Parts: sequence; C-alpha cells; structure tokens
Amino acid sequence: MAVSRTVELDGHIIDSGMMETSFRTIMEMGGSFEVEEFQIGRSKTEESYARLLVEADDEDTLQSIIHELHQNGANPADPTDATLEPAPADQVVPKGFYSTTNHPTEIRVDGEWIDVENIEMDCAVVVEDSEARSASEDSSGQSPREHGDNPRAYTKVLNAVEEGDLIVTGSAGIRVNPPDRPRDSEGAFGFMQGGVSSERPSESTIRKIAGAIEETKREDGDVLAVCGPALIHSGAREDLAALVREGYIDMLSIGNGFAVHDLERDLYGTSLGMDTEELDHPRKGHKHHIYTISEIIRAGGIEEAIEEGLVESGVMYECVRNDVPYVIAGSIRDDGPLPETITDAIEAQNAIREQAHRADFVMMLSTLLHSVAVGNCLPSTTRTVCVDINPATVTQLVDRGSAQAVGMVTDIGTFVPILAEHLFDERE
Amino acid sequence: MAVSRTVELDGHIIDSGMMETSFRTIMEMGGSFEVEEFQIGRSKTEESYARLLVEADDEDTLQSIIHELHQNGANPADPTDATLEPAPADQVVPKGFYSTTNHPTEIRVDGEWIDVENIEMDCAVVVEDSEARSASEDSSGQSPREHGDNPRAYTKVLNAVEEGDLIVTGSAGIRVNPPDRPRDSEGAFGFMQGGVSSERPSESTIRKIAGAIEETKREDGDVLAVCGPALIHSGAREDLAALVREGYIDMLSIGNGFAVHDLERDLYGTSLGMDTEELDHPRKGHKHHIYTISEIIRAGGIEEAIEEGLVESGVMYECVRNDVPYVIAGSIRDDGPLPETITDAIEAQNAIREQAHRADFVMMLSTLLHSVAVGNCLPSTTRTVCVDINPATVTQLVDRGSAQAVGMVTDIGTFVPILAEHLFDERE
Amino acid sequence: MAVSRTVELDGHIIDSGMMETSFRTIMEMGGSFEVEEFQIGRSKTEESYARLLVEADDEDTLQSIIHELHQNGANPADPTDATLEPAPADQVVPKGFYSTTNHPTEIRVDGEWIDVENIEMDCAVVVEDSEARSASEDSSGQSPREHGDNPRAYTKVLNAVEEGDLIVTGSAGIRVNPPDRPRDSEGAFGFMQGGVSSERPSESTIRKIAGAIEETKREDGDVLAVCGPALIHSGAREDLAALVREGYIDMLSIGNGFAVHDLERDLYGTSLGMDTEELDHPRKGHKHHIYTISEIIRAGGIEEAIEEGLVESGVMYECVRNDVPYVIAGSIRDDGPLPETITDAIEAQNAIREQAHRADFVMMLSTLLHSVAVGNCLPSTTRTVCVDINPATVTQLVDRGSAQAVGMVTDIGTFVPILAEHLFDERE
Amino acid sequence: MAVSRTVELDGHIIDSGMMETSFRTIMEMGGSFEVEEFQIGRSKTEESYARLLVEADDEDTLQSIIHELHQNGANPADPTDATLEPAPADQVVPKGFYSTTNHPTEIRVDGEWIDVENIEMDCAVVVEDSEARSASEDSSGQSPREHGDNPRAYTKVLNAVEEGDLIVTGSAGIRVNPPDRPRDSEGAFGFMQGGVSSERPSESTIRKIAGAIEETKREDGDVLAVCGPALIHSGAREDLAALVREGYIDMLSIGNGFAVHDLERDLYGTSLGMDTEELDHPRKGHKHHIYTISEIIRAGGIEEAIEEGLVESGVMYECVRNDVPYVIAGSIRDDGPLPETITDAIEAQNAIREQAHRADFVMMLSTLLHSVAVGNCLPSTTRTVCVDINPATVTQLVDRGSAQAVGMVTDIGTFVPILAEHLFDERE
Repeated sequence: MAVSRTVELDGHIIDSGMMETSFRTIMEMGGSFEVEEFQIGRSKTEESYARLLVEADDEDTLQSIIHELHQNGANPADPTDATLEPAPADQVVPKGFYSTTNHPTEIRVDGEWIDVENIEMDCAVVVEDSEARSASEDSSGQSPREHGDNPRAYTKVLNAVEEGDLIVTGSAGIRVNPPDRPRDSEGAFGFMQGGVSSERPSESTIRKIAGAIEETKREDGDVLAVCGPALIHSGAREDLAALVREGYIDMLSIGNGFAVHDLERDLYGTSLGMDTEELDHPRKGHKHHIYTISEIIRAGGIEEAIEEGLVESGVMYECVRNDVPYVIAGSIRDDGPLPETITDAIEAQNAIREQAHRADFVMMLSTLLHSVAVGNCLPSTTRTVCVDINPATVTQLVDRGSAQAVGMVTDIGTFVPILAEHLFDERE
Repeated sequence: MAVSRTVELDGHIIDSGMMETSFRTIMEMGGSFEVEEFQIGRSKTEESYARLLVEADDEDTLQSIIHELHQNGANPADPTDATLEPAPADQVVPKGFYSTTNHPTEIRVDGEWIDVENIEMDCAVVVEDSEARSASEDSSGQSPREHGDNPRAYTKVLNAVEEGDLIVTGSAGIRVNPPDRPRDSEGAFGFMQGGVSSERPSESTIRKIAGAIEETKREDGDVLAVCGPALIHSGAREDLAALVREGYIDMLSIGNGFAVHDLERDLYGTSLGMDTEELDHPRKGHKHHIYTISEIIRAGGIEEAIEEGLVESGVMYECVRNDVPYVIAGSIRDDGPLPETITDAIEAQNAIREQAHRADFVMMLSTLLHSVAVGNCLPSTTRTVCVDINPATVTQLVDRGSAQAVGMVTDIGTFVPILAEHLFDERE
Repeated sequence: MAVSRTVELDGHIIDSGMMETSFRTIMEMGGSFEVEEFQIGRSKTEESYARLLVEADDEDTLQSIIHELHQNGANPADPTDATLEPAPADQVVPKGFYSTTNHPTEIRVDGEWIDVENIEMDCAVVVEDSEARSASEDSSGQSPREHGDNPRAYTKVLNAVEEGDLIVTGSAGIRVNPPDRPRDSEGAFGFMQGGVSSERPSESTIRKIAGAIEETKREDGDVLAVCGPALIHSGAREDLAALVREGYIDMLSIGNGFAVHDLERDLYGTSLGMDTEELDHPRKGHKHHIYTISEIIRAGGIEEAIEEGLVESGVMYECVRNDVPYVIAGSIRDDGPLPETITDAIEAQNAIREQAHRADFVMMLSTLLHSVAVGNCLPSTTRTVCVDINPATVTQLVDRGSAQAVGMVTDIGTFVPILAEHLFDERE
Repeated sequence: MAVSRTVELDGHIIDSGMMETSFRTIMEMGGSFEVEEFQIGRSKTEESYARLLVEADDEDTLQSIIHELHQNGANPADPTDATLEPAPADQVVPKGFYSTTNHPTEIRVDGEWIDVENIEMDCAVVVEDSEARSASEDSSGQSPREHGDNPRAYTKVLNAVEEGDLIVTGSAGIRVNPPDRPRDSEGAFGFMQGGVSSERPSESTIRKIAGAIEETKREDGDVLAVCGPALIHSGAREDLAALVREGYIDMLSIGNGFAVHDLERDLYGTSLGMDTEELDHPRKGHKHHIYTISEIIRAGGIEEAIEEGLVESGVMYECVRNDVPYVIAGSIRDDGPLPETITDAIEAQNAIREQAHRADFVMMLSTLLHSVAVGNCLPSTTRTVCVDINPATVTQLVDRGSAQAVGMVTDIGTFVPILAEHLFDERE
C-alpha cells in the first residue's frame, strides 16, 4: 500500500468496543493495518493500549479512514497542530471543515492540546486567540462564559458561523475521547451502560434511575426533564409537579402541547363535572384545548395567569412558583401558540442548547421530537435516560449518537409515580 | 324487491350501536329496509325497540343479510323452531350449520326458547332431547354439568361433533342477545366499556381493575390470569405470586415458557451471585433455561419438584401450595417441555375451555397466543382485561370478537406491582 | 327537565354514525331527548332526517350538549343569527368564541346563511361586512382570494386575530355539515371511507390510490405530497422524483431533513465508491449530512445549487426544474438549516396552510410531524391518504379529526415504486 | 487467582466480534486473562489467532467462564476427550450435560474430533459407537440419514433422550465453530451479514433476496418458506402460489390459520359477489372461516378437496399439485383444525425439524410463532431471512440466537409481489 499513518487507541478499548470498531472500520473502508503494540488491561480497572499502522492505497482513502477512526476515538500518533481556515462568509464554513462528534475533544494549537468548549455533535470548531477574544461567541452565538489568556476552542453550529471565524479543517491536531464504559458497575450509574432495556425488571430499573437522580442532587448537579404531552394524558401530571416542587427537577424542556395540556387540566379538569381521576373524559376536549390557549393569551402569558390566580396547580404552576426555568419550543403542529412559546426554531435550539450544556442528568419522557432536539446538543458525557412506551422511539434516541443514553421501554403513566415514590421514600 | 322478512331489535340498541350496524349491514349487503316501528328509550335505563322489514332481490341475499343481522342481535319477528339435522359423520357438520357468536343465544325447540349452554364463538349448536341425554357432551366433548327433563342445547367445536348429533342449521329459531352497554357507569365495572385505553390515566385505570377484582371476589367469582413470559422478565413475578397466595387469582393459564422462566428464577436466580434485583443479568441464560427443564423432568414434574424442596418460591410454587389450578398449554416453540405441559393442541384447548367457562373475570397479561386461545372460549358476558405494552396485541385481542374486553397499553412490570399494592392496601 | 331545544339532523345520518353519536352525546352529557320526527332513507342514495327535542336540567348543560351536537352536524331547528363580538385586542378572542371543526360550515348573518371560507379546525370565525372588506384577511393573515358585496365569513387562527375583528361566539346561527359517507362505492374514491387498512390487500389498495390520483389530475386538481426522510432512506427517492417530473405531484411539503437527505444522495451518493443501490452504506454519513448543508449554504440555496450544476438529480431537483412549489418547514431537531427552510413555526404554518387549502388530494408519506401540521389545516372534504409502516402514526393522523383520511400501513420503500408503476403503466 | 485454563480463538475473531465478546465475558463473570499470543489477519481474507490464559478464583467460576467462551467459539487449548455419561432414564439427562449452541460443533472421542450431526440449539449431544449404531436416532428420534463405522455424535432434544444414551457432559472435548462473517461482500449473500434492515432501501434488499434464492436453486439447494396468515390478508397469496408453482419454494411450514385462509379465498373469495381485488370485504367472514374448515373436513382433507375439484387455486393447491411438502403445525388458537394439521406440539416440532435440517435457505414471512419454532431447529449456517412489518418480530427472531438471520421490516403484501417479479424477470 502506498500510504500509511500511525494511530493510537487507549482506555478501555476492548470493553468499549473501540478496538473492534477500529479494526473493522479500516478493513471495510479498504485499508489494512498492522498492530505495532498491544497492551491489554487485565483487570477491571486497568486500561489498554494499542498502536496501529494504518495503510491504504491512496491518500484520499487514508484520510477517510483516519477521519472515521477519529470519530471513534483513535488518534494519530504523530500529532501536528490543527489546521485553521477563516470562514469565507457568515454561515459558510471553509471546505473540509472538521465536523464534531459529541465526545470530549481536544485541538492542538501552537503545540498545546486545548479542550473544545461546549462540545456537541455536527458543529464546527472555532479557535480564537487572546486578541480575537472580545468578539467571541459560543455555539449558539452567545458569549462564552469565561476564558483566560490562552487560545480557546469552542463549537459553533453552522448558522452561527461568522465571516472570518478561524475554523478547524482536516483531521490533524484533533483528539477525540469517547467515554469509557467502566467494567465495574459501582455506584448508582453503574447500570447505565447504554442500550435499550426491555428485558430488565421495570421496578428495579426505576429504582436505579431514582438513585441516579439522588446522586446528581447530592453532587449539586442539575436535572433536566424533557417531557411530551403523553405524560399529562397518562395521569402523571401531579407526580411530575411534585418532583418539580420538591426540587428534583431543575429545568424543563417542553413543547407548546405539553404546556397547554397541563394548563387545560387546571382550567377545565373538573369544570364539566367529571371525576378528577378522569376515567370518563369529557367530549373530545378540542374546545378546551383551544379555550385554554385563548385564556392564557388573554391573561398575557403563563406567569401572568398564575399571578392572577387563574392557574393554581400543575407542572407549569410549580415551575413558576419554584423558579424552575423552562423552555417551550414551538413546532408547526402547535395550536395557538402560548405567548411563552419560542416559535423560531433556531432561537428555540439556542435556548435548548443552553439547558443541555448545563444539565448533569437528562430524563427524556415520552417525546421523540424534543428528545432528539435536546440529544443533539448534549455531550456524550451527560448521563441520559430515555423513557417511552414505544421501543422505536427509544431506539431512535439511543441510535442518534447518544451512546451514553439508557433507554427504558415502559408506561410513562406508571413510571413517574413509581419514580416519585422511590425518591420521596428515600428522603424520609 | 322480491323477498322480505321482519326482524326486531330491542335493548340499548342505540348506545350499543346495534341499530346503526343493522341499517348499515342491510344496505352494504344489497338489501333495503323499512322501519315499521321505532321506540327510543329516552332516559339512561329505558330500552329501545325497532321493527324492520328487510327486503332483498333474492332469497340467498336475504338469507345472508338475516344471518348477519343475527350475529348482531337482530332477531326475526316471526319465530319458528330451529332446524335440526343429524351430523353425517364424526367431526362433520351438516351443510349450512349455524356457526355461533360468543353472545348469549337461545334456540327455539318445540315452540320453547331454550338457552344454549356454554356459548362460545365458532361452534355448532347441538340439541338433545331427554332420551338422548345420556350420551350428551359439551363443547369440549365432556359431560355437561347438569340438565333436567327438557331438551337441551349446547355448543360443540367442530372436532367434538359426533355422527348423529342433532345440529342447528340455517338461522330460523335462533335468538342472539349481545350484552348491553349500560349508559350509566355505576360500579367497579362501569369504566369497562370496551376499547383500548392508551389515553386513559394509567394509575386510575389500574385502580379500577383492582376494584373489579375485589367485586368479583366479593361475589364469590373466579379470576383467571392468562400470563406470558414477559411478566417474569419484567420483574413482576413476586407480585403475581403474592396475588396467587393471597387468593386474588383462582386459575392460571400459561405456556411452557412462563412456567420454565418462573422456575428458573427460583433454581438459578441467585446461584451465580447476581443481585436479586437482577440488573446485571448473567450470561445469556439459555443454559439455565434448558437446565431448569432438565431438573424438573428429573424430579418428575413441578409438583414433585416442590414436594422435594427443589423449588421454594414463585408463581408455580404458590399455585401448587394454594391449590390454584393451572393449565400449561404447549406450543411448537417450547423447549422441553415440562412434564405438566399439555402438548396436544385439542387437549390443551379443552383444558383452557373449561377454565374459560368457569371464569368470571379474566386478566390477559402480556401474551398474544394464550390470550387469543382463552378469548376464543369466552362468552361475551365474561369481563375481560387485556394488558400489554404493544398496542397491536391489545387491539388484536379486542378485535377478535371480544367486544367486552378492555385493553390497557402499559408495562406489565409496573402494572402488576401497582395492582397488587392497590389490592393489598384496600384490604387493610 | 327545565330547558330544551330542538335540533335537526339530515343527510346520511345513519351511515355516517351521526344519529348514534348524537343520541349518545346527549345521554352521556346528562341530557335526554325525544325523537319528534324520523324519516329513514331506505335506499343507498336517499337521505334521512330526524328532529330531536333535547332536554337538560339547566341552561349550561344544554349549551354544552348543543355545542357538541353541532360539532357532529346536528343543527338547531330554530335558527337565529350568529352572535358577533369584537376581538378586544390582537390575538385575543372574545370569551365564548366559537371554535371551528374542519367540516363545511355556514354562519347566519342578517337572516342569510353564508359559507365560512377556508374552513379548518380550531379557528375563530371572523365576519366582515362589505365596508370592512378592504382590510380583510384569511386565516393565515393573507388576503382572501375573492369576495363580492355581501358579508363574508372566514376562519382565523388565534395568532392572526386582530383587535376589532368581529368574531362569532356561542353556537347560535352556525350550521356544520360533516361530509356524508356515501353508501355506494362508485368511482376511484369509493374505497376511501376512512379507517386504517392493515388487513386490506396492499397492491390493490395502492392501485386504488393511483386511481384517485389520476382522477384528481383528470379534474385538474392539485396533489400535495407530504414527505418524511424515511422515504429517502428506504430507496423511494428516484420514484418520487419521477412522479414530480411527470406531473403527478403539484406541491411538496417537507422538512429540512428530507431536503438534506435528498441532496446528500446527489452530492455524496456515489463519491465513496458505494454501489448506487446502496446496500453497503458508507461510514455513518453524519459527516455527509452536515457537509451537504454546508455546500448548499455556500451555493446560496437549493435553487442556486441546481443552477450552478452542483445538484443534478432528485426530488428537490425535479421540483425546481418543473416549477413544483415546495415548503420546507423547520423544526428544533434540524441541522443547518438550509437557506430555504422556514424556521419560524407560525410563518411555516401559514405556508403549509396555503398549500393545504389549495390541495385536492393529499398524500402523507412517512412523517408524523408534517402530516399532523398539514392535517390541522385541511377541511374534512379534502381526500387524504396517510402511508406509514408504523400503525401508531397512521392511527394518530386519522384520529386527529381527519375522519376523511384513509390510512395504509405499509413500507414506503415499496409503496412509492408500486404507485409509480401503476401510474406510468396506466398512462401508456 | 487460584485456577486457570488456556483457550484459543481463531478465524475472523475480530470482525465477528468473537475476541471482544470473549474479553468482555471473562471480565464480566469475575475472571481475568492474559493474552499469550495474538496474530491479527491484516487483510480481508487472512484469519486471526489469539491464545488466552483465563484465570478465576475458583473452579466453579472458571467452569462457567469456559462454558460461556465455548458458546462463543473459544476452545480450550489443551483438548481432552469429551466426558460421556449414560442417561439415567427416558427424557432425563445426566447432571451437567452439555447444552448445544446452533453453531457447527465437534466432539473429541478417542482422540478424534467428530462432527455433531444435525446441530441445533438447546439439545443434548449423544455419542454412539459402531456397535450401538443400529438403535441410533437423530434429535427428533428418527433414524439418522447415514453413518459409517466410526463413532457418531448427534443432537437429541430432551424429550427424545432414552435411558442409557451416552450423553456429553461438562465442556471438555467440545469445539464450537461460529460461522465467520466474511469481510468481503462478494456474491448474492454478501449483503446478508445479520442485523435488522429498516434503513436499507427496500427494493434493492428484495432484489438481493431474489438473488440469494436464485443462487440457492442454482446450487440445487432447498428453499423453505415459513408463512403466517397475514400473507393471505395482505393480498400476496397469488404471488406466493406462483413461486410454489414455478419451483422457487421447496417446502412450506405453516399453521392451521394460514391453510384455512388460503382455502377460504378459493372457496368463498368470489361467492358473495365481492370483486376479486377484495377492497370491500364481506361481512366479517368468521362464518366463511369455519365453513371452510367444515367443507375440508367433509372432503376428508386438503388433498382430497383438491382431488375432487372443490379447491382449484392457491398456495395449498400448488403445493399439492407440485409435490411441495408442507407441515401444518397446530396451536391452541386454531379453529377446527384441518385434518392435516399436526395437533401434538412434539410431533409438529419433529416435522418442522426435519424440514429445517434439509433447508438451505429459509424465508420467514410474517409469523412470529412459526418462525421461532423453525429458527430453534436451524443450524447457524443456514441462510435465513425474516420479513415482517413489525420490527419487534424481526428483532425477536434475530435475537433468539439466529445470528445469521437477516431481518427486513416491510409489508409482506408488497414484498412477495416484488420478489416474484424479480425472480420471474430474471429467468426470462
């Protein structure tokens, strides 16, 4: 073969499947390889190391292979600085720009490896030296939270790229570090090794998730709940509201439909004489849906409706009363929408992105659209649970590159009450 | 139109959709009709009555229409005796035999209406006068439970028909009475008006099902649980065993797989050092599965294994200890099978049929095959709940003619614990 | 009972279930009724008529019942003019405003019944007399297409309501006309009587849909295709492109993902040496996805990319080349997005609304989000087919009030080729 | 660690995931290991080799680990003869018997490695020397097809074990050879590397399956079709019948329901005046179903019904006319059943087993029960395709140890016609 390059793998490269994926990638893409060095961690905690000489017939193929290995955490053994090129125009990246994974990533600038801030998938990486810092922005186009005197690297989504941004191209000088899956399952997160659980015992799994939330709170972490309207229909509204009230949920990411259904339960839930347990529900309720929106608009918004005593219970009520920030992202199927709903998709993504970057633990509860939107912005190191009764939804979420996500196929209407019971019991 | 016949509808013919279905049936099948009389019950409890003159171009079409109307509960206004013909050979019915619905049915013999015993769908009706009674059999070929001096009518499945059986043919002299759906929802069963509940609040629905079980027990009724192996996988085994032990389940209908998984949990559940909550489960367990079968065969059967102390917990254990009868029906995908498994499908159907006829309340828990088998033998008057995480399963069960069945789409692993909690709490 | 009101039902009130629904509604909501007159259409084409005296204990209950009956097509027998109240502020409707169904609706103004233009569900009805006409707008806030000297009535979604708009409140003076389901199944649309077909023969159903498209084209109607990205993944891209090229599709409603996948196939489909039939697909392709977006942005947009020869095939290509208008609606899960993507949800809804109002036949192809968005804007008289491999998607679409929609559960990757084959064969 | 043993892996141990699975298995089960030798095949065709020293704290754990590694294809480096123990009674195996995988397996007897005949999963292995040969039986209790003078080893399911059978216990002297997944995708089967295809282009995948059938026929192989009743409902009956007639299907494995639906189409398909394309189907048809069974029983069976001209078309008709053997396996949900239906599960399994062992290519078409039953009897070397519209069915089939199976999620009603078209086109 005409060209070759040396790459290194280290960490739990066998457990995580990284080694196998690397070997397979090279061969499927038409290359070959030699294992120059191979040290296997023999116990659960010991890490492994492999150095491969990757060969291909031409430079293009080699580049493609190296790019793929990168995504998978194999890094060139002969590091050089990352190549930087200025963006030719707003929203236009240089040709061959490096598109990020959601794994922790470092960029080599002036011989030093620096972390890429706010890592998330499918972004460009912008490098900024100390002089340029004043104009700096993060991936959503907002000002980065802090920086020192050294060069910085951070992600930008395509639509936030500005003319002149120095953008990483090619694959040189980039180091990707997929999270290890530890061999041992100590701690509350031990069970969370990815994959969809439809064979796992339901109650035990929920207890483990409760444990993960408690651990997050003990460590002063932030829990983000991403919720779809089925949660309200299935009767889990009061338990979710209690979780907000009791401080187990720090941020809420929802759509217009969730908010309207939650408010409708408050405004019309008992007005037509149906019993509160709701087993014979009133005439289709489409009227209530649109009437709820109309009443909230009349009041000027959700907060105003709560202030004036119009709304007195529910998830939105507890968020407002307990200063739990929420993002209501709009969609083309919304009625209304409510005044608080962010109708512009890019603006909504930026609000979601900010929550996602702050979250330490994410629960995605019976919503495909919002879970994918949040998942797109999460680094692979953020612990994530997806709960849905439809296995296709859970699979799709886990497949979209969020290898760290744990999927649970269950009924959201029984999941939330059992979760709340475990959390409240534990506290007593 | 050349030919006509008068039919009558009575009962809650509007609520139940019977009238609409009748009108639609006539027109779709190429006939027409005149409403000769129509009295509408104006309040919730008042019944309605309609008399229709059905017309068609030829006798064949009219017959087909009248047959369909029958199935739906519309009965000819000019009753004659049912036509009886002897079966020409074993398992062979006379041409044009009347194939039953699962609704309560009467047959007119010698000018008298007599109830068809053990009604179930897709059977022949055998009429037996007092002389012939000594050779009588019910639909499974077993002796009927009781009979007096008068003629009797009962169902027989095709394979139980014997040469010379007097079998009802045509549609004359037959009265079908679909159960009314009462307008009011009093009592624990009020909510159970059929249909699949995926929008109903989960916990409230489970509470209602608990109420229906309690009501059944208060009335000394029998609860039949039909269970699939997913119940064991999902961690609901202990709660189901408790329900058996505490007397809430009177009969069990399962397959070989369910029994093996339940026993395997006892025999191997802790032997490999996994924690009992089972979140990291052992190597595939295929070996345990086949080893369990082997151990039970060696012991001589489930009861023997329990007697000799080999098996000490679980659903099968509680059944044996508490004299709760169970039927283990075999299938072509079984391993083993266990000694108690009935491998002949007809023999197994007969065992299932006997349970089904005795049951007052049936819970179908995450099994399509066994639920359909049991559902085939149930009269439409037996209250039935189908629980499965797959909406297609629930829909298929409800669609197969069991209009009385209530479907609930939920996780069996959370359903059984919450059900048990409600039942045990209530009792205290 | 203290209060009463007379309502009338006419049309195919039995076939359509309208009568049964009316009876049931009254009783479930706590009222009672007397059938004052009842004439049943005896043949397939004859219509029926019923006049009911509806009674309730109090005016509120009666109002609720009458409102529900309305939605279902039962109209008060004693018409008065509709009540009109001015909107107190932009986006704020008067209390008790009438929320529309998607059925053809008339409003009584000055003793005359006038049609509500651009009917769609969950809107307010604005009435405008001849003086006010100059400022008139339709439901999306755009100018209505035509009007004469008489008062007009048209729909407005909540967010388009302007201060001072005269809005219909209450339920007086409103007539709703649900489409009849004809008893006979003549013509290509005969089979399309709603419901989800999973038991219907697949090929025959596709042939019928092809017939419906041909009929639409013969009548100079417009076909709107609403497509999700699975259509591209499943290999149906070329056949859909051919349908656009050959004039069978007049409008396209899609999301950013569909457009990107279609363009990516053109830009990168063969570049990595995979065979065009795509059975071993290249390394995950995330890179291609984001690179495609980047290339199109660089070109300035889809049309520019086609102009400059960058894109040379596919669905978007055929749309641009054949002047088939498309709407690309944005969502929070989009990458990029492409320059043509409408990121504001309200703006996107308005663009979708305009297409929906023009369409005579709508095909929804494997997309839940976009199908619901389009379905929300369709009158119940527009023939609609929903195709998806997931029965839950089809059911959800059909359930959302689009009673006219026919659902087909099939593989979009085989559906489109067979549909195209039937259409092209037929033409020869 | 107290105890250790050396195992060897060879073949495509990286591509196939064997090495990773081995490493992971050891560590998850509490052992550790040292890689004593490791040679990696560098090109697509070169095989790899690894020798591991496996260590554990105690003999029991080591045994469990070694057993698991076995299942996965890692074989002890220090082979001894297999341990043989006589079965203590009919259907009772010795304790610690070796339970088979579905991979090709060898047993070491008298220092020689001999192939285990009729390998399938979850069986015991019986060894027979030349003297005992006359009484020999295969796994279904039938006589093995051929044998020479040397000792033989073959599988027996538990219920076929006879007192005195010499049965392999422990894990010594056993070599398991999982099929390699070749790195290159040459030939018609190249695409068939397992996994469920829901993202693959549908038509191209069907074309590949057609190619695999042609290749099987060219090599004089046998195609087994396993079919569920949905195939008939979805309109694919005529195309499947044509495939039988034209010699593409050599064996049929079905249930009672499939056969009845197929025959019902012939007997009643047009009798009620519905058009043959079946878009308005007749009144529920339950009557036709049971009448069909009755007519076939009256005739004496399917073959007799065809002989006497009662049945003149369809899948069963073509099977009888073209001497294509079929197995109709009974189940507890059957009506009737038909005279040809094998009602005993063990007898039916034996018939299925015989077909499965003869098959070179298996198509499982929209049936879970029968596909699992057939899959249980297949060696992992038999090429298998599972087609179903429900992804859960496909996943379950593939998961049950049939790693060689390719799953395709599509509509059987479009799959069969397109498959037939490709096969017939190709031939011309």
